[in-house]
Amino acid sequence: MMSSSGNTIVPLKTCPAGQGDGTEQRQRGRQKVHDEATLKARVVETAFSTFQKHSYNGTTMALVAKNAGISKRTLYELFPSKIELFAELAIRHRANLLDVPAARHAATLEDALKAVFKVDQSDEKHLQQAAEMRLFYVEAVANEELGVLLRRHCGSELHDVVTAWVEEEVAKGRIVTQSSRDTAKYLLDVLIAARLFRPKTPDVITGLSDIRTYLNHTIQLILNGLLPR
Amino acid sequence: MMSSSGNTIVPLKTCPAGQGDGTEQRQRGRQKVHDEATLKARVVETAFSTFQKHSYNGTTMALVAKNAGISKRTLYELFPSKIELFAELAIRHRANLLDVPAARHAATLEDALKAVFKVDQSDEKHLQQAAEMRLFYVEAVANEELGVLLRRHCGSELHDVVTAWVEEEVAKGRIVTQSSRDTAKYLLDVLIAARLFRPKTPDVITGLSDIRTYLNHTIQLILNGLLPR
Repeated sequence: MMSSSGNTIVPLKTCPAGQGDGTEQRQRGRQKVHDEATLKARVVETAFSTFQKHSYNGTTMALVAKNAGISKRTLYELFPSKIELFAELAIRHRANLLDVPAARHAATLEDALKAVFKVDQSDEKHLQQAAEMRLFYVEAVANEELGVLLRRHCGSELHDVVTAWVEEEVAKGRIVTQSSRDTAKYLLDVLIAARLFRPKTPDVITGLSDIRTYLNHTIQLILNGLLPR
Repeated sequence: MMSSSGNTIVPLKTCPAGQGDGTEQRQRGRQKVHDEATLKARVVETAFSTFQKHSYNGTTMALVAKNAGISKRTLYELFPSKIELFAELAIRHRANLLDVPAARHAATLEDALKAVFKVDQSDEKHLQQAAEMRLFYVEAVANEELGVLLRRHCGSELHDVVTAWVEEEVAKGRIVTQSSRDTAKYLLDVLIAARLFRPKTPDVITGLSDIRTYLNHTIQLILNGLLPR
């Protein structure tokens, strides 16, 4: 679905100075690929704030191009349509939500859960994740096509990834469960609801810990259960 | 917020035959209250299916009255405005979601959780709860006023009820936790997400157990944790 074309990217006035200044011919090809990846990341970031402000339906490709400081032509070379731009945002969100590879090298299940849930990431990244989830939550309701897209990219595919990880942990003897697929849903539900159902204003649900403390408390419950050990 | 007026209810053609047939004068007052409660319940049920079909914004009081087979005047006597009708639906939903009183008499924490989560209720009631949650999920996004109402009735008030129950269980020594309020959020998140994020069609997330089996698996995880005991 994503464009994988190697289109030439029009240099940007606002682009930070590259490492290659044209004197090293052999670096040019690699530099172009690097520039395209950087530009794509920046455009997706701009698209996110534009979707947040104007909603998906109220956002045009022309507006994203303007906000990103690039031409419409360049934008269409990167993303052939608005929905492909939104899909890229969803896919990046999913990739950022969990860090299963890091969990594989963890010495204990506790460390693994903290790695998967990215508990120790910066406050800024916690806030960014919550903001993305809220956008998706709104758009999945408002737009049936986006609902389908999000259920696939951020629903079933995420569930498959977590199920595979749970099965690895069961094989290691570190997780006891009656159903890996149900356990994966339970873990994802806790992780997603921790952020999505978190009050935006402190007066909605009072007395909750900050997100990092909350996730650490929750991980203790997930590991040890409510019953005294 | 709710109307507590003792307005006379116009008898309905479709109303089931009452127990009092007018021969017992002393029963009349009680019968009227009973009839009003039955009628209110039926109107709320009708309003739910009307909101589902036409959305909150697309629903008029006239349409609810017509669907319920009552006059607009009778409907306004029961519920002075559409938002009060919606609030009544949210309050009934919250009351139906959890059964904390039943949990208080449970012999074990496992029985208490099954009672609170109403795991053993009928399939029909499980489906009804999920359908109500999905309506609220959609309307809270679509309508800011309803979002505020739902966050209060089905957010903070529910959280307070569960926190109080967790604290009772902690006092009994049946729950070990670092924060009762965080634990209440964790339990509610699991309970709500179990229903709300459940796929409507089987192809979205495959291999999940049915809702009752899923909740029973989840209760085992909540009780015992993932770590071997």
